[in-house]
Amino acid sequence: MNKEQFFIHKYFSKLSLNKQSLNLKNDAAEVDFGRNKIVISTDMMIEKIHFFKNDPPELLARKLIRINISDLAAMGAKPYGYTLNLAIPHRNASQWIKKFISGLEKEQKNYGLKLFGGDLSKSEKIFMSITIFGKVSKGIHLMTSAKKKSDIYVSGNIGDAVFGYLCENDKKYNFIKNKISISSLKKLKQRYFLPKPNLELSQALVGYADACTDISDGLISDLKKILHFSNLGADIYLSKIPISATLQSIYKLFSDKKKFWELVLNWGEDYELVFSMSSKKKKVFEKNKTHHKLFKVGSIRNDRQINIYEKDLTKIKLNFSGFSHF
Amino acid sequence: MNKEQFFIHKYFSKLSLNKQSLNLKNDAAEVDFGRNKIVISTDMMIEKIHFFKNDPPELLARKLIRINISDLAAMGAKPYGYTLNLAIPHRNASQWIKKFISGLEKEQKNYGLKLFGGDLSKSEKIFMSITIFGKVSKGIHLMTSAKKKSDIYVSGNIGDAVFGYLCENDKKYNFIKNKISISSLKKLKQRYFLPKPNLELSQALVGYADACTDISDGLISDLKKILHFSNLGADIYLSKIPISATLQSIYKLFSDKKKFWELVLNWGEDYELVFSMSSKKKKVFEKNKTHHKLFKVGSIRNDRQINIYEKDLTKIKLNFSGFSHF
Repeated sequence: MNKEQFFIHKYFSKLSLNKQSLNLKNDAAEVDFGRNKIVISTDMMIEKIHFFKNDPPELLARKLIRINISDLAAMGAKPYGYTLNLAIPHRNASQWIKKFISGLEKEQKNYGLKLFGGDLSKSEKIFMSITIFGKVSKGIHLMTSAKKKSDIYVSGNIGDAVFGYLCENDKKYNFIKNKISISSLKKLKQRYFLPKPNLELSQALVGYADACTDISDGLISDLKKILHFSNLGADIYLSKIPISATLQSIYKLFSDKKKFWELVLNWGEDYELVFSMSSKKKKVFEKNKTHHKLFKVGSIRNDRQINIYEKDLTKIKLNFSGFSHF
Repeated sequence: MNKEQFFIHKYFSKLSLNKQSLNLKNDAAEVDFGRNKIVISTDMMIEKIHFFKNDPPELLARKLIRINISDLAAMGAKPYGYTLNLAIPHRNASQWIKKFISGLEKEQKNYGLKLFGGDLSKSEKIFMSITIFGKVSKGIHLMTSAKKKSDIYVSGNIGDAVFGYLCENDKKYNFIKNKISISSLKKLKQRYFLPKPNLELSQALVGYADACTDISDGLISDLKKILHFSNLGADIYLSKIPISATLQSIYKLFSDKKKFWELVLNWGEDYELVFSMSSKKKKVFEKNKTHHKLFKVGSIRNDRQINIYEKDLTKIKLNFSGFSHF
């Protein structure tokens, strides 16, 4: 449990003794406003913590919407609307806002999302947050209901975002930047700024996956939440983690392979799904929904252990502090 | 129109071309989640803009909830639940959060409010925001529907909060601080930190008031929004503005009476209601809901002028730049 989760568990959970909050153990709340259930989630992006002062406002807006959409994907909900909080420095506010707005506009169209309202203020540092509303059709995914004997899946390539970030911002990783093509580098950065929450798969998985979340803090860190809340463990196989062709080349550049995997599995911002599903449900899912690609990366254990295995099936000990905003 | 409103009108309104947003012309959105309509509003408090680093966390939490409750009062809605964003420095986070939580807990009880979820992060400066949800029973108040010939009312004393703030934080106002009793000073500060949104009156006024909002930016500034959106003007009588006994003493200490009224009418944070109502509706309201006290401060004009009158009914020109967060 990282410090953020510790604070939430220790202090905030006693304020949320209502069924709508789902005990703060999921990616969002599920609120019953009359006939329809609505998934509600909120996420912030703060200067110097989540991004840099000079990052393009349009990309920040797009990322802000997408990371919030990803929380809806984690729950299997459909985008509906959002409210926005934005605080920015006074200087060049007009220019900055204009660009920010164009990013919001693009993503509203992409996701069929409505802006309901918001609050605008000046501040020394840039701060932004969205509260997002999703509609529920058949049901939602929980993080508390992974089942013994289920397998563990991810929805797509892991680790591109971390290298997009590191190549851009950390000189230590120039050994990578200098060896990969400009177009590959651009793709990695794209994954960092413009994650693609897999809404369609997530909704398709409702009724099939027994637990699901989105990878925002790192594959292992987010999987750990599912396992913790479900009181289970996992076996994970490195050879089965899907990585892009660019990451396969980057892997070769690392003399310390452990370090490579620690970055890939621990850094987060992939915004792919990680979920568990029984082999029986998997068969039915594949029969009914054939066009989705799933990547099986391991399986659930009955005890609380999390084991990571090398290609040769020897256990490997990786350093997983897990990303925390504290 | 201040800069905040200018930005909202110029840039954000085109993103909100949906009926739920009420064209961003009100204190909140009204969203139809199935059978029930829900009022949604969001408000931020940012270090150095809305409060100081060392302000007591418990009071900040209580104020944060109350200013958001005030947006529900502006709309005539009933408190239901909220989501929270909180970003604070790493240092002493645990102690700070503990106190903050105790403030939230008190106000959740006061207002029968549920915490649905939230997001927690570290940051250099303290940042907090709430998105609040209110239930609608008979209907809501709008700011766009003030009527010709209606009178203008406020729900209670104006101006205590500004002097609570100034006596605490601005040495220029020591001439007041040194002349009033400690208990009076305490009351003023209380009004600054713990506003009392008038939910009961607001709900009672649904169907009677033709336009209503809460005073967060200043009586005149918020009234101006109603008048602007309703395409009307107003006559306001200083002698009719309700002020506390303490403010009556403070008034006597001012050699520049204009300055006194500029502070009282322009500074904001009163979190009382300002609304318009016809004399006919007023009579029915008083017959049906006798225990509410209303303060008539003026009346609607058919043109777009806003006139302020002295006791002797001469017009007075006050400097109303209106508080803006930009």
